[in-house]
Amino acid sequence: MKLYIGNKNYSSWSMRSGVLLTAFGIPFEEVKLRFDFIPGSEWHRVIAGISPTRRVPVLVEDDGFTVWETVAIAEYVAERHPEHAIWPRDARARSLARSLCAEMHGGFGRLRTVCPMNIEVFFPDIGRKLWAEDEALRADVARLDQAWSEAVAASGGPFLFGAFGAVDAFFAPVAVRLSRFGLPLSEAAAAYRDALLAHPAVEDWVADAMREQDFVPEDEPYRQGR
Amino acid sequence: MKLYIGNKNYSSWSMRSGVLLTAFGIPFEEVKLRFDFIPGSEWHRVIAGISPTRRVPVLVEDDGFTVWETVAIAEYVAERHPEHAIWPRDARARSLARSLCAEMHGGFGRLRTVCPMNIEVFFPDIGRKLWAEDEALRADVARLDQAWSEAVAASGGPFLFGAFGAVDAFFAPVAVRLSRFGLPLSEAAAAYRDALLAHPAVEDWVADAMREQDFVPEDEPYRQGR
Repeated sequence: MKLYIGNKNYSSWSMRSGVLLTAFGIPFEEVKLRFDFIPGSEWHRVIAGISPTRRVPVLVEDDGFTVWETVAIAEYVAERHPEHAIWPRDARARSLARSLCAEMHGGFGRLRTVCPMNIEVFFPDIGRKLWAEDEALRADVARLDQAWSEAVAASGGPFLFGAFGAVDAFFAPVAVRLSRFGLPLSEAAAAYRDALLAHPAVEDWVADAMREQDFVPEDEPYRQGR
Repeated sequence: MKLYIGNKNYSSWSMRSGVLLTAFGIPFEEVKLRFDFIPGSEWHRVIAGISPTRRVPVLVEDDGFTVWETVAIAEYVAERHPEHAIWPRDARARSLARSLCAEMHGGFGRLRTVCPMNIEVFFPDIGRKLWAEDEALRADVARLDQAWSEAVAASGGPFLFGAFGAVDAFFAPVAVRLSRFGLPLSEAAAAYRDALLAHPAVEDWVADAMREQDFVPEDEPYRQGR
């Protein structure tokens, strides 16, 4: 099967599915499409033919069967690979993991807006200013910190439900944002962030992103000021 | 178990979980919390104690175990009730249903913003004006129309995958919005919208909402102009 992804440096949603498949050693062909904002471009032409939502990631089987949306991709892969604990084996832990994935999928809007994923840049000054001024951002991070700390305390860590699973792949891009913008976390949440960043599948993605060096100016107006 | 919901007239997310449980005859106690925007109010006090995200719906078992987010609630209920086809029995249809639910969960932002759910009011004039002026709204509705028409054509209807399931509960509030704002649909999509509105679990919810008569002025500034 193919996983179509966007630029590794920017595409936090692509990262979730890519890290998940890599972490469990599930074979797939990665096809990277370069984002742009130009009407009629290669990106727009190709994405329209493969993704019903015209977004990445999208998983396409050899016969053309297509799964889109990271939550649905995780469920599809979990059903196809019952030998892997992609979700926790315990029913209640599994339900909590799904609640957290869905919360990530639809929530944390302020964090996602003001701290976009941009793996290869560190923005501690912008992060400090945002932290001081942006109450909605602080509320998003406080909720993340609470959810992470509670889950790690209950499971014993190092990941939210012990071993690495889909829910951890969902939070991997968040760990990147928090580290790049230098946003403060409790000790327990910081330890989880660091465990995520040190996972081999996350490290591989980050290393590829650092090598990418393919900048989309429209995606980062703040870069010009550096 | 208890399902905490918001005002039936406004809370489209509550409607998804409530309609799902009702449609499959799964016993639950419905607990309605009245939305408001007053700091320190009953709403804020109660919701902080039961919902990690301070949002509804939230499902709480008798021993306090809590599931939040409509996608996770659907998965939890499906696992607890394998006797019901809450997801399609066919693996690929199930995967498509989950892709559509996740797309609904995180997408259709323009439709959700400019056509809020307000069951007891019809806004055909506002709908006509929006339709003429708002390209992003037309794009959201075009995508909905395409997804619905394709699924119904493949399954034979009347619902997206034949019999009523979780994915249809997810689109029930959308059917309400489209009907209240009078937005145009293809024949196939309009037939699906009408099948949704005629489902007994949807009709029950709508009837309760019409009787509610509990208006939150902050939730509908446009009402004053009627």
